[in-house]
Amino acid sequence: MPSPTSLIRPLVRRLEAYVPGEQPKISALVKLNTNENPYPPSPKVLAAVRRAVDGRLRLYPNPTSQPLRERLARLHGTTPAHVFVGNGSDECLALAVRAFVEPIAAVPSDDPRSLVQYFTPSYSLYPVLTDAHGARRNPVPLAADFTLPARAALRQDRRWRVNAALTLVTSPNAPSGRGYPTAELDALCRAQRGVVLLDEAYVEFAADNAMRLARKYPHVLVARTFSKAYSLCFQRVGYVVGHPALIGALDRLRDSYNVNGLGQVAALATLADRAYYRRNFRRIIRTREALTRDLTALGFTVLPSQTNFLLVHPPRYPARDWLARLRRRKILVRWLDAPEVRRYLRITVGTDAEARALVRAVGAELHRTTTRDR
Amino acid sequence: MPSPTSLIRPLVRRLEAYVPGEQPKISALVKLNTNENPYPPSPKVLAAVRRAVDGRLRLYPNPTSQPLRERLARLHGTTPAHVFVGNGSDECLALAVRAFVEPIAAVPSDDPRSLVQYFTPSYSLYPVLTDAHGARRNPVPLAADFTLPARAALRQDRRWRVNAALTLVTSPNAPSGRGYPTAELDALCRAQRGVVLLDEAYVEFAADNAMRLARKYPHVLVARTFSKAYSLCFQRVGYVVGHPALIGALDRLRDSYNVNGLGQVAALATLADRAYYRRNFRRIIRTREALTRDLTALGFTVLPSQTNFLLVHPPRYPARDWLARLRRRKILVRWLDAPEVRRYLRITVGTDAEARALVRAVGAELHRTTTRDR
Repeated sequence: MPSPTSLIRPLVRRLEAYVPGEQPKISALVKLNTNENPYPPSPKVLAAVRRAVDGRLRLYPNPTSQPLRERLARLHGTTPAHVFVGNGSDECLALAVRAFVEPIAAVPSDDPRSLVQYFTPSYSLYPVLTDAHGARRNPVPLAADFTLPARAALRQDRRWRVNAALTLVTSPNAPSGRGYPTAELDALCRAQRGVVLLDEAYVEFAADNAMRLARKYPHVLVARTFSKAYSLCFQRVGYVVGHPALIGALDRLRDSYNVNGLGQVAALATLADRAYYRRNFRRIIRTREALTRDLTALGFTVLPSQTNFLLVHPPRYPARDWLARLRRRKILVRWLDAPEVRRYLRITVGTDAEARALVRAVGAELHRTTTRDR
Repeated sequence: MPSPTSLIRPLVRRLEAYVPGEQPKISALVKLNTNENPYPPSPKVLAAVRRAVDGRLRLYPNPTSQPLRERLARLHGTTPAHVFVGNGSDECLALAVRAFVEPIAAVPSDDPRSLVQYFTPSYSLYPVLTDAHGARRNPVPLAADFTLPARAALRQDRRWRVNAALTLVTSPNAPSGRGYPTAELDALCRAQRGVVLLDEAYVEFAADNAMRLARKYPHVLVARTFSKAYSLCFQRVGYVVGHPALIGALDRLRDSYNVNGLGQVAALATLADRAYYRRNFRRIIRTREALTRDLTALGFTVLPSQTNFLLVHPPRYPARDWLARLRRRKILVRWLDAPEVRRYLRITVGTDAEARALVRAVGAELHRTTTRDR
């Protein structure tokens, strides 16, 4: 009998799984580690989902999420054929890699058709998806301040490939929080020969968005999610807007019923109550600006953020120590073990009360040491 | 600017999407086409899901479906490391293909490592998944009466490959409805050198199941679903039981949060009220036996079924005509355009009232023609 491990593809045996942020069970913890929205879904959304919990659960959901595609098409001034709905935007990203990128084994070595290109730091899922598909990673560093390299610099950067099969750009970026000017994204897209996917998971907290580029260029896709801005992480709904040919490719690869029914119901109800969410965006942005001021006053270097989180360089102790110190004070933030961001903490912008709790804890840690140092 | 179609992998361009059964909007239709359970989920399950529709929707669900894995492990007398939970069993099947089978491009031609093997007819998703992965289909015909070929016959059948990377067996089978004796499945598994996945989507309606083979053999996986027997199609929860090494391979390929939170809640509540569902299984089996007798009396050849549907060969008209005739009478059944089953209709066993409506419609069609023929 062969050993079970020998039955697994060597490529899959070598994979490391993506490590999601901790979902701890400790109560009374201030949870600022996975960029969830601190506010619940709209009461109308909760009511709509509750109303849908009946005998219909025995039936298959709409296999193409058609009513949701239609509603999203109206929202973005396009047609349902331009919209793909996925089991969270993570599924959309995974399908894009499988639809547009060849595994290394399928093409000559160094062929750009097997290249997945992305800036570093950005969403740590991209290399995971690349490896899972047996494709080649092409990470290209951002500038030191996490801004997008200038067009001229990119053109001269030999690492950057204009014909990479797929270029993934988190915009605004995670974990840096930086927004990229749409004009710069436009220039970047215009120069690319492969598919460009702009991953706008946090765009509702930004001053601008790049949805118009998905309508302007047939090789540009824009991905969005209901998870963060719309407080629906639990229900896994994301989507992609772009040319119907590219959308059709995602459709041919997805599972037949990829989006659960109550998720579809929740997303539709969300789009019927956008005013509620716009109020939340404004509150979160206000808290973000206040938290930026408070942490700066305490000696933190806070990067400008267009998202619902802050990347901060803390004073006095290494970032990793701060992670442990804050955790002891029941505040959970994120520290990412990647060379470009190891010096930083990523802190989700919660409610005002959560931000105050964080600032108090930080102040207490700094004060404690000051006292001891004497 | 390259054409968008040229940006899609040739393999993906060539794919045909799986065609799910119709989900029509016509009301008062008797829907016997997609093998859904005619009974709603237990009132306790509906109540548990409703109770969970609150602020928690803003949070990510448990990324590994851990509480559900633990509960399923207890149910099947194994450990959580032996259980994988997926976004419906369709996701489990898709991941198995990607975890255990090499794309053609990655291995020498005719290498069994790129082979996905299955009997025909069985679940029509298998060739779709094989093509999407760029692997090779190895369909092997069942006996004419849809029974499993005898071990001796399989050993001599040159089409059958004991070292196929993955063998998918729907058991009981769809669309035939036939159950396979566990002793025969055991012999089949014992002889295989690659992974065998027993797809038990309908097993709750059968007299026996083969879960013990997943515990007995390290290369055997058993897949189950909450969709059909447990009336949760809408919520997309399926699972696989098997050796931890194989389970770990599925885990490394899945999306980080592949199973929506309310689906996890619903599945857990389901397992706490199994008596309700066992009553439904018994009712459906009784209706199935009565419907078998009634259709046989009307001149149909009805294959023995261990599932919640019947495969029937209708008298007088071709099966495809019957599909249209019954649809005009607001009864929706399934006709599959595949050579082995083109002569048949697949009819889901609904409630007693739905079965009576079907029998009445069939009787009326037969009578109408008789009258006209005179």
